[in-house]
Amino acid sequence: MIKWPFDWLNFGFGVDEMSNNNPPAMILVEPQLGENIGSVARVMLNYSLSDLRLVRPRDGWPNPSAIPMAAGAFDSGVFVKVVDTFEEAVEDRDYVLATTARPRGMNKPILSPSVAIPELPDQAGIVFGGEQSGLSNPIVAVADAILTLPVNPKFASLNLSMAVGAICYVLGEARGNRGRFENSTQNTQERAATKKELLGMLQHLEVELDAAGYFFPPEKTEMMKLNIRNAFAKANWTEQEVRTFRGAIKALSKGRGQALKQSKS
Amino acid sequence: MIKWPFDWLNFGFGVDEMSNNNPPAMILVEPQLGENIGSVARVMLNYSLSDLRLVRPRDGWPNPSAIPMAAGAFDSGVFVKVVDTFEEAVEDRDYVLATTARPRGMNKPILSPSVAIPELPDQAGIVFGGEQSGLSNPIVAVADAILTLPVNPKFASLNLSMAVGAICYVLGEARGNRGRFENSTQNTQERAATKKELLGMLQHLEVELDAAGYFFPPEKTEMMKLNIRNAFAKANWTEQEVRTFRGAIKALSKGRGQALKQSKS
Repeated sequence: MIKWPFDWLNFGFGVDEMSNNNPPAMILVEPQLGENIGSVARVMLNYSLSDLRLVRPRDGWPNPSAIPMAAGAFDSGVFVKVVDTFEEAVEDRDYVLATTARPRGMNKPILSPSVAIPELPDQAGIVFGGEQSGLSNPIVAVADAILTLPVNPKFASLNLSMAVGAICYVLGEARGNRGRFENSTQNTQERAATKKELLGMLQHLEVELDAAGYFFPPEKTEMMKLNIRNAFAKANWTEQEVRTFRGAIKALSKGRGQALKQSKS
Repeated sequence: MIKWPFDWLNFGFGVDEMSNNNPPAMILVEPQLGENIGSVARVMLNYSLSDLRLVRPRDGWPNPSAIPMAAGAFDSGVFVKVVDTFEEAVEDRDYVLATTARPRGMNKPILSPSVAIPELPDQAGIVFGGEQSGLSNPIVAVADAILTLPVNPKFASLNLSMAVGAICYVLGEARGNRGRFENSTQNTQERAATKKELLGMLQHLEVELDAAGYFFPPEKTEMMKLNIRNAFAKANWTEQEVRTFRGAIKALSKGRGQALKQSKS
């Protein structure tokens, strides 16, 4: 079973909150190119999905052209079920979304992935048409809702695996708690510099800039110092970064070649 | 041609609200396969993006293998700029996101697309590494934040174009809501330093620190440079602050009393 990497990223929530015991099945109706089926398998497993169903794949199944694009997905968790009819593909599904870019004139909810996916019930299926013509009206008619992507009307034709990939991405995103991604940083063990450390660094910098003759003319000195203080204050440096920069000030202030001479001696 | 059915979908916003005058540039660093570059171009245009930049594409450019996968995107709006260095690719960008799945041990915000994309400022760049090894640490170090996708840790390697596609999808999704996300918290009269200005300052600092002999011992030089880059990248300095600090570097590097001597003469 695939484990979601939140402990690694340390986003602060546990496996229970993220587990999704019933991810949806991805159903491709009459897909044509093996390469696309392989790409679909790869991107499904990228986002921890494993239930792939093919209705009448044009070139049969298994299809050698699918293998390279799958990058090992068929051996690592994606299970393929091949069926003859759409009905067989959805018979164990309680809720079916049909993806289409074309208006169908049907009295049916039209949902964007960001609306539909987080609310997806268990035992759902998401259906995609083949490369050439998309889903037929009789199939769209039995879906619970239409799922549509926010594409450019002048260049609306997505590659089949790209359409599946966008949905898989939203599924991956929905599985976590998006609010908790916000402003998370790695290395939380690095503590922020205290004001004392920051001021020590600024004084060091000012002393050396003064010694170098940077603060000129005198009537502008105060403003120059304020600008430098503002710039470094907003950097929010860690204690380590302050120390690094103090080393840099020290090296620079010795003049060219001097720090090297000293560190080698 | 498929028309986007906004009135029909009744999402409650008009065309004006959806326009995005400054969509981000997509920057691929050392991409290998032309097929992936073609797929990237197609999915970019699917979501109305057009600014594609390639840093040292392995097989040169133009690349015939890119054409079939692009499905006409290069003739329909995607403009490709090929450059030799990462610096050239980002020199007109004010804000850079680096996509990576690996922890880098850098003290930098780690954002999910759903958090980062709706708040994306104008003149942004989103950077993707090549198929084999992703982005190098020196490139990640100058980014404003790390962008990460909610992938399966046991099968985390996304196809390059799929990674770009997920981001493009979120951009398409966010565009519809842009009006609601609009915020103007920044002081607009002082413009943020461009990446070119920041990198110029960092180079200046590194050259002078090197001349001073700061980078010692040699095996630590790379890490020392990364730490400095990270520290200054997160400071979010304005153009004026960068200029001020370049003056400070210049003064310090002359050695004590030298800058004064010069400014008085």
